[in-house]
Amino acid sequence: MSQSFNPTPRTLMGPGPSDVHPRVLSALGRPTIGHLDPEFVSMMDEVKGLLQYAFQTKNELTIPVSAPGSAGMETCFVNLIEPGDKVVVCQNGVFGGRMKENVERIGATAIMVEDEWGKPVDPQKVEDALKANPDAKAVAFVHAETSTGACSDVKTLCALAHKHNCVTIVDTVTSLGGSELRVDDWGVDAVYSGSQKCLSCTPGISPVSFNERAIEIIKNRKTKVQSWFMDLNLVMGYWGANTKRAYHHTAPINALYALHEALVMLKEEGLENAWQRHMHNHLALRAGLEAMGLSFIVEEKYRLPQLNSVTIPDGVEEVKVRAQLLKEFNLEIGAGLGALAGKVWRVGLMGYSSRAENILLCLSALEAVLSELGANINTGVAIAAAQKQLSG
Amino acid sequence: MSQSFNPTPRTLMGPGPSDVHPRVLSALGRPTIGHLDPEFVSMMDEVKGLLQYAFQTKNELTIPVSAPGSAGMETCFVNLIEPGDKVVVCQNGVFGGRMKENVERIGATAIMVEDEWGKPVDPQKVEDALKANPDAKAVAFVHAETSTGACSDVKTLCALAHKHNCVTIVDTVTSLGGSELRVDDWGVDAVYSGSQKCLSCTPGISPVSFNERAIEIIKNRKTKVQSWFMDLNLVMGYWGANTKRAYHHTAPINALYALHEALVMLKEEGLENAWQRHMHNHLALRAGLEAMGLSFIVEEKYRLPQLNSVTIPDGVEEVKVRAQLLKEFNLEIGAGLGALAGKVWRVGLMGYSSRAENILLCLSALEAVLSELGANINTGVAIAAAQKQLSG
Repeated sequence: MSQSFNPTPRTLMGPGPSDVHPRVLSALGRPTIGHLDPEFVSMMDEVKGLLQYAFQTKNELTIPVSAPGSAGMETCFVNLIEPGDKVVVCQNGVFGGRMKENVERIGATAIMVEDEWGKPVDPQKVEDALKANPDAKAVAFVHAETSTGACSDVKTLCALAHKHNCVTIVDTVTSLGGSELRVDDWGVDAVYSGSQKCLSCTPGISPVSFNERAIEIIKNRKTKVQSWFMDLNLVMGYWGANTKRAYHHTAPINALYALHEALVMLKEEGLENAWQRHMHNHLALRAGLEAMGLSFIVEEKYRLPQLNSVTIPDGVEEVKVRAQLLKEFNLEIGAGLGALAGKVWRVGLMGYSSRAENILLCLSALEAVLSELGANINTGVAIAAAQKQLSG
Repeated sequence: MSQSFNPTPRTLMGPGPSDVHPRVLSALGRPTIGHLDPEFVSMMDEVKGLLQYAFQTKNELTIPVSAPGSAGMETCFVNLIEPGDKVVVCQNGVFGGRMKENVERIGATAIMVEDEWGKPVDPQKVEDALKANPDAKAVAFVHAETSTGACSDVKTLCALAHKHNCVTIVDTVTSLGGSELRVDDWGVDAVYSGSQKCLSCTPGISPVSFNERAIEIIKNRKTKVQSWFMDLNLVMGYWGANTKRAYHHTAPINALYALHEALVMLKEEGLENAWQRHMHNHLALRAGLEAMGLSFIVEEKYRLPQLNSVTIPDGVEEVKVRAQLLKEFNLEIGAGLGALAGKVWRVGLMGYSSRAENILLCLSALEAVLSELGANINTGVAIAAAQKQLSG
């Protein structure tokens, strides 16, 4: 007979999910009420407002999709893109490839702009692609590539897209709440994110936001959106401000309690303070890792503070290191994905995981395990290097 | 500044979500661990086995989709149906109409078989449609219509479909765990359900199951599945038994803790005992409601025990009744949907909501509010009638 599941508490320093604050877990477990209950409906309005703050947008259509980030991505594509459209898709990691899949499954064409994994999207290549494809409808790219830790220049890329009459679709799964993101100021037309990265909420929800330009495109489609579940014309009937709440699907009530609490906490801290905390802690982790002799794969000026991709010391069996960190210290760090599998670790400092105590634990556990496995690293120096930054 | 959200506890006797047991809420709030953590992966295997038990199936491909029931529905359609296919869709309530939308958005044709709201699907009409459309590929219908409370004969409909070489897609959102359902014995090829009805888990997850016949169809598709998020070829890579867990999307970790606990509780009670409990409590509620003078819209032999659609007494403003039940007694019952809006109330006795104390609360609160509003009902008799059944 199956037993209740009692997971061993872990410290989550991989690419997400990140540590979930006890306040968020506590909100998650509150009594379930109906999805049309007036109290729930009021909370939904607050979630919208709090998401507008997190995205730095006034977009009316700012809502949490009732499914993980990849469904948020698909929501953007299936609503904005129609069969026969051309989309410039930038790929500098795993998620650009997923965007291509989305475009092609709509019956549209993806014009690929490729950059090396670990590099940001090159605006010059995007401009070249736009000039070569004057009939392109959209430009899609990832702000913060979770698979590499590279940050691309949203503002420049959006300006380029608009110069060529394209709408922009931007993946901010790993950036939202962790590094500067200004949806309105930067001209992002459609954006999606995830709950389980720098918002430090439980996984399963994807915040999205669409501006007027994007909504015009959705309203003027020639074909129906191919997904019933993700059709924003229907979803808006439930989340819309000025409409009677029309039943579309049953909202994931408790997951939204948790998102609400995570967003309340972000507002309490202040968005810019959260961005600064992520950077401050990143610099400390970096000081420690570099003192140990590990190096970053992303060039400093494009490096994300919340996702640190570092090289694996020669001769070390990386799977064994991660297994031991988990077994001995209940510490999770991430493996490399795709082209970087076996070549890097991804150390996340996202949301509630971005704390001084996590940095010290990670550095000391990594030093202990790597030493035990005979890796060639500098010992006895990482903690002091990190602490100097932390208190600096 | 927004505050933490503390919902007023309610008693949920609408069409779902149902009351969530404290054990399930407690599981939901346990510490989040990684979606590739060995402990989580073991728990996933248990969830699969427990879902097989709930569905009464040996299907290997039995998994929880990381999104609400309507995404489970869409998962069935987009994987099994391709552009140009013909699907016989039975409509006897809201959800058949949603199936039609799914079929059409794939570029396939829906052959509609319509029955009155409140009636079960008529097998004769289905057979006529199959004879008239020998090229039909699938038959889709709802087992337990949440919008009306009518139960259709799954076994007969599946046998008909197979006689005409069609695969079956069956909606069991409201039946799973609440009334007899035998996926293997009845020949259901593809099935989807929801977490928030008779499983009494929080909303947001959709259990699905596919047999070999369905998997053959998926494997032999001519076109890619139009949805990346719902493509079972990819999802199987993560949930599959014999494969290395391939990253597809980040699972909704905590929501799966809750589903696991709800399924453990179902196993503890025993599936057939749960079906009997739903029937026993339904008969008690029915005795009370009928004693009060309210009548059921579904003929007795097709009536679902977990979803009771009853007529509204003449001259009563139904919105006012529901608002007062919520305000005065924190009791939620459901409104009518679609063709039945304004004509019925839907009283749910699903999962943990199906308890003697809920029946007495519902009957006494309804009697109090209806009397207060001057409705022409029999007073002072409902509780005794219900109690006679409960103790019988």
